[in-house]
Amino acid sequence: MADQTCSVSNLSALLSTGGSTNSTAAAQYICSQLQTAVLTTADITTAVDMTFLLFSTYLVFAMQLGFAMLCAGSVRAKNTLNIMLTNILDAAAGALFYYLFGFAFAFGSPSNGFIGHHFFALKSVPSPGFDYPYFLFQWAFAIAAAGITSGSIAERTQFVSYLIYSSFLTGFVYPIVSHWFWSADGWAAANRNPGDSLLFGSGVIDFAGSGVVHMVGGIAGLWAALIEGPRIGRFDHNGRSVPLRGHSATLIVLGSFMLWFGWYGFNPGSFITIAKSYGPIGSLVHGQWSAIGRTAVTTTIAGCTSALTTLFAKRFQTGHWNVIDVCNGLLGGFAAITAGCAVVERGAAVICGFVAAWVLIGFNLLAARFQYDDPLEAAQLHGGCGSWGVLFAGLFAKKDFVEEAYPGRPGRPYGLFMGGGGRLLAANVVQMLVITGWVSVTMGTLFYVLHRMGLLRISAEDELAGLDVTNHGGAAYVYCEEESAGGGSHGGFMMKATNSRVDPRLTPLSPNEI
Amino acid sequence: MADQTCSVSNLSALLSTGGSTNSTAAAQYICSQLQTAVLTTADITTAVDMTFLLFSTYLVFAMQLGFAMLCAGSVRAKNTLNIMLTNILDAAAGALFYYLFGFAFAFGSPSNGFIGHHFFALKSVPSPGFDYPYFLFQWAFAIAAAGITSGSIAERTQFVSYLIYSSFLTGFVYPIVSHWFWSADGWAAANRNPGDSLLFGSGVIDFAGSGVVHMVGGIAGLWAALIEGPRIGRFDHNGRSVPLRGHSATLIVLGSFMLWFGWYGFNPGSFITIAKSYGPIGSLVHGQWSAIGRTAVTTTIAGCTSALTTLFAKRFQTGHWNVIDVCNGLLGGFAAITAGCAVVERGAAVICGFVAAWVLIGFNLLAARFQYDDPLEAAQLHGGCGSWGVLFAGLFAKKDFVEEAYPGRPGRPYGLFMGGGGRLLAANVVQMLVITGWVSVTMGTLFYVLHRMGLLRISAEDELAGLDVTNHGGAAYVYCEEESAGGGSHGGFMMKATNSRVDPRLTPLSPNEI
Amino acid sequence: MADQTCSVSNLSALLSTGGSTNSTAAAQYICSQLQTAVLTTADITTAVDMTFLLFSTYLVFAMQLGFAMLCAGSVRAKNTLNIMLTNILDAAAGALFYYLFGFAFAFGSPSNGFIGHHFFALKSVPSPGFDYPYFLFQWAFAIAAAGITSGSIAERTQFVSYLIYSSFLTGFVYPIVSHWFWSADGWAAANRNPGDSLLFGSGVIDFAGSGVVHMVGGIAGLWAALIEGPRIGRFDHNGRSVPLRGHSATLIVLGSFMLWFGWYGFNPGSFITIAKSYGPIGSLVHGQWSAIGRTAVTTTIAGCTSALTTLFAKRFQTGHWNVIDVCNGLLGGFAAITAGCAVVERGAAVICGFVAAWVLIGFNLLAARFQYDDPLEAAQLHGGCGSWGVLFAGLFAKKDFVEEAYPGRPGRPYGLFMGGGGRLLAANVVQMLVITGWVSVTMGTLFYVLHRMGLLRISAEDELAGLDVTNHGGAAYVYCEEESAGGGSHGGFMMKATNSRVDPRLTPLSPNEI
Repeated sequence: MADQTCSVSNLSALLSTGGSTNSTAAAQYICSQLQTAVLTTADITTAVDMTFLLFSTYLVFAMQLGFAMLCAGSVRAKNTLNIMLTNILDAAAGALFYYLFGFAFAFGSPSNGFIGHHFFALKSVPSPGFDYPYFLFQWAFAIAAAGITSGSIAERTQFVSYLIYSSFLTGFVYPIVSHWFWSADGWAAANRNPGDSLLFGSGVIDFAGSGVVHMVGGIAGLWAALIEGPRIGRFDHNGRSVPLRGHSATLIVLGSFMLWFGWYGFNPGSFITIAKSYGPIGSLVHGQWSAIGRTAVTTTIAGCTSALTTLFAKRFQTGHWNVIDVCNGLLGGFAAITAGCAVVERGAAVICGFVAAWVLIGFNLLAARFQYDDPLEAAQLHGGCGSWGVLFAGLFAKKDFVEEAYPGRPGRPYGLFMGGGGRLLAANVVQMLVITGWVSVTMGTLFYVLHRMGLLRISAEDELAGLDVTNHGGAAYVYCEEESAGGGSHGGFMMKATNSRVDPRLTPLSPNEI
Repeated sequence: MADQTCSVSNLSALLSTGGSTNSTAAAQYICSQLQTAVLTTADITTAVDMTFLLFSTYLVFAMQLGFAMLCAGSVRAKNTLNIMLTNILDAAAGALFYYLFGFAFAFGSPSNGFIGHHFFALKSVPSPGFDYPYFLFQWAFAIAAAGITSGSIAERTQFVSYLIYSSFLTGFVYPIVSHWFWSADGWAAANRNPGDSLLFGSGVIDFAGSGVVHMVGGIAGLWAALIEGPRIGRFDHNGRSVPLRGHSATLIVLGSFMLWFGWYGFNPGSFITIAKSYGPIGSLVHGQWSAIGRTAVTTTIAGCTSALTTLFAKRFQTGHWNVIDVCNGLLGGFAAITAGCAVVERGAAVICGFVAAWVLIGFNLLAARFQYDDPLEAAQLHGGCGSWGVLFAGLFAKKDFVEEAYPGRPGRPYGLFMGGGGRLLAANVVQMLVITGWVSVTMGTLFYVLHRMGLLRISAEDELAGLDVTNHGGAAYVYCEEESAGGGSHGGFMMKATNSRVDPRLTPLSPNEI
Repeated sequence: MADQTCSVSNLSALLSTGGSTNSTAAAQYICSQLQTAVLTTADITTAVDMTFLLFSTYLVFAMQLGFAMLCAGSVRAKNTLNIMLTNILDAAAGALFYYLFGFAFAFGSPSNGFIGHHFFALKSVPSPGFDYPYFLFQWAFAIAAAGITSGSIAERTQFVSYLIYSSFLTGFVYPIVSHWFWSADGWAAANRNPGDSLLFGSGVIDFAGSGVVHMVGGIAGLWAALIEGPRIGRFDHNGRSVPLRGHSATLIVLGSFMLWFGWYGFNPGSFITIAKSYGPIGSLVHGQWSAIGRTAVTTTIAGCTSALTTLFAKRFQTGHWNVIDVCNGLLGGFAAITAGCAVVERGAAVICGFVAAWVLIGFNLLAARFQYDDPLEAAQLHGGCGSWGVLFAGLFAKKDFVEEAYPGRPGRPYGLFMGGGGRLLAANVVQMLVITGWVSVTMGTLFYVLHRMGLLRISAEDELAGLDVTNHGGAAYVYCEEESAGGGSHGGFMMKATNSRVDPRLTPLSPNEI
């Protein structure tokens, strides 16, 4: 880049001879050099931001692996293939639908406040602000929503139904919601274009999607699970809850840790850029990098507080230390902090996590009482803790942090408990209501139609036998080959890959937990 | 860094007093300051690029974990320890051999077009363009090739044979291939040193290694599996294919997702640097960051299209929704897009993935017909889909993208279907032939010699008992301790860690798939 | 940023009219522009460094997942829930304690040489040098230490005891150690504040924590395991070692690979920053990025050499190729290189790994001889190989690398074998002694008190039945539902989730290994 090399002789000649002509040339020379440096710096800034965004995206994608393992471990062995296939298809079908339609509906710009209508099949991408890494990041979010819903309807849903709802959710329902709250054109976004009025002068602050992602996935799951009804044997004749234990706690822990790992892309990554100074330039600590770090810290603290609260609460409630509940408590804390992660202090994150644990416990008690069966507790966890998270952001968002994360509108409202008035809270309550209404109308209707068409729930025989042998060509595990009949039964065999139907008893196994 | 602080008084004195001496000094002062800024920026650029490369490398390394889990899940439980050990050793032995020889053969520079001969044991590293992160990135690629081959020969190969071929492949055969196509000195590279003529005026465009990595691993596996012959019981007396199901679909899905995750290092990471402007500086969207993002998108779309195509094709073919096949379809799509990922449009990626699914299905049918047994479908998937990927790049490479990814030679050929003529395609066909020939001659010969020396295949008794108890000191799983004989058989036991030989029946389990 | 745009007309006017007033204004103008460029660059540098640090942190965090899987696979199935819960709680309780106290004790600054006393609950964070990502990185290290210890006491420890020691270790014992050796205020740190004298003129070089992390965790585990005594059945009546095999080699390999993956955050990430030039600016290869890459390479080579050495040594010793031992050898090599990873040549890394393998084998022989039972070999591996690593750094640290990684004190001592005298070695030996003493006094005492209070070891009945059913509400795995009694035993069932006590025989299973 020859034009970056300052020529002493040229500049010297210009400076020495005086006169306005040469002065102008000298100034042009100096300014040109400086301008080159500034532009080069702008490119490097973009490269840094994109590096940050790309690897954050990869972490969010890793959550899909986490979901797959969490779901697999949480269902009975006979439905393992089924649930894992749904997780793969969330990502795969989601990629095509989000590429063709979803991203356009969500972030197509310019657009009206309700739906985007550019960027179909990524036409006109890249354009400033809408480059490929941004698309990929948003895709990873979209498939997370679909993954949540698949948990609620596990172990009893027809595969074709799954294909239909997943595509509809990823390609249409979720993108619309993210348009409303995250697109600069969205009617309720906190980051609306300059000049556009904000909802209640505030807009909704749902930074990484307690509402946009978790409530959407959770409420969709709620309707599906309500319409399908509980799995056979999930409640006994007296209506008592009979846990149908998942087949592998190891997979649940593996999945939970992967989700934790991925959440560091989900929450801190939602800043999209990192190389942005907040204070006077060169201050080193007043920049987005610090806010991103703080977001990772609040995320960690909320999840960990919720996990510990759950540990002791369940110990008191059931008498043992339950690792599955702790995992769910952890994830509930993450789902709750997601809305406010970037705009609250770390102390508030403790409160967020503590309450999230009780929210989840409460919703689980409610679910048991009303005989609502959700194999992953997805509606309770993502819907319930997600809702708490949306409120929490309206209560605890801190002035400085709000103005840094949503710049350009000094004096904007912030958290009620932080002295920022009730307008942010009001906006966030509106978000909860709108999401609940929208998802209920769209996904609730879809599931009901599928139900009436006989496409939603599998037959009782298939359910008893398990989806894997009836729909997916075999069992997930073949630990030993079939032995000759004379070999006796002491040899340590397990789960053969036959197509014979097994006929499990429906007797409660250990009724001492929810 | 004191010299970065501009001194107003010094500069002012120089500017005020006029005269050529002071003008020169003023110009020197200003230029020196500017030069410092430019050099500092150059260092930061390097730091950004290295950050990008290092974390891409870590992702590619994570593919080794993916391979280990995919392989483990795809074999029978009795051979799990064996296959996992081979995956660890790919990485470990590969590290030493690639460090001592492989990197030197591959990228030693300056060198002739056929083999590198510098950088043995990383001597003279770091030097410009050849820093440690680059070595580590290339090592992670090298061990991937060896990992592919281990899949083809699973469940029936002597461990010593494995050690020999893995070292030879990672230390010699693969490095030579990567020298030819990726080193700036390579005779067929598209990024040859300025002034060197390109093969057909084009050079081979195999951006991330559909040919260099996947075909090499796949063809090596093909010869090994052909020479060894199928596993006992893999084809019945009438020659019908009898699937020997892997023992854990969960591990297969875990491995596939990890490979997907890692592929984001493999393909986009192959740009090596990210902080590079393509257009006028400061244009923000015309830079390598955008091309990297696009590469991640084409990779995603190709894999997902292939997965979905496979899902429906297999459903039609077998009547069920098969998650294992979908995983293989996914990986086949990735293997295919790897050559062209950086130089094709996202729409072309849909075509790439769609065809890849059928290529894999077709080669699997061929394999069944000719009683070729490859437990991981590695030759079909990496060899077959990899070959398609090499052709695909020659057909669909887009002018602009080729000139950005392989700069400095305007007007160079590009994809046939994009109006770029047949020269790129011709070069890529040459690559396919050359790789096939070279790997067949070297690895084919090696496997044949090992076969003749009696070092390749294990005994039938060991194969029936499983490699784990016969060669690796026990079984991979011990879910319950041995119970006293009087304890009855109801207690739920499984796979004891005894050294007794189990003698499985060879009866087909479920002959309804390939 | 309007002030970054150079105005030609303004500058031209200033340059043209001469006179000292305008000259001063011209100089101010030029300098102001340059200063803006320099400060902008400083912010970008921070953003790059933070990106590097954050993603390194996430990798280190992923090690906790690795530990969880490694531990789970290494214990018997009946204790799987227990050990995984301890791993989750390391992270969760560790987050709260390290946030409230630990980070303040470790890095609170300014402070005395023995303990920090600022930054409680992250008060005053961010401040220059102490931003959120740095806290999170150090937290991920702290929980690694606690994770190591949990391995030593697996399968026989009361959960309440675990909660107590983990909090004490993460919140107090470990932070003090890291203060001594890593804080700029620490009495033995190699990076002490300018002007403070170094221990033996050198200070301790333990770059990423062979001593600070691995020895601390290992020695704590040693005392706990000594006080608890071996698991029931671990040594027969003649004192012969009877391996109690872990239940899943797959989980062990998964965990080992995840630890390998995470170690790329642990070792290279310990540089904290990447955008730092060592040589003349703009030299491109003389910067921290290159040192970071080299650190990743030495880490890889040491681990791989140790793995290969173990493979052949154990083959010679036991007659088979043992994947579990190879995994432990690999991790031992990593634990050893951790102290010196940044300051040794790659050739020295080969020596480091080779010796580490024999150190681990030797300590395992010692353990068997003295009937010391450590289910994860944690004391041997992290304590033993960690100790070797501390010595190794004192022997092989290279002059240039030491001066780059620990700048500002030219002529400082380096490795004995590299001609740098014995002072660094002496400092590192002091570190070994001090860590051993401090951890023995604090953690040894704690475990002894817990032991005397009857809080440490579980009852023999619980141990035989397994911790999962007695303390954690069930078994980790439910592969099949309970079948009706009449269903026969051929159906392939396994490990039911009953609360009935199983009563395993204590007979040795396969006494042919350590």
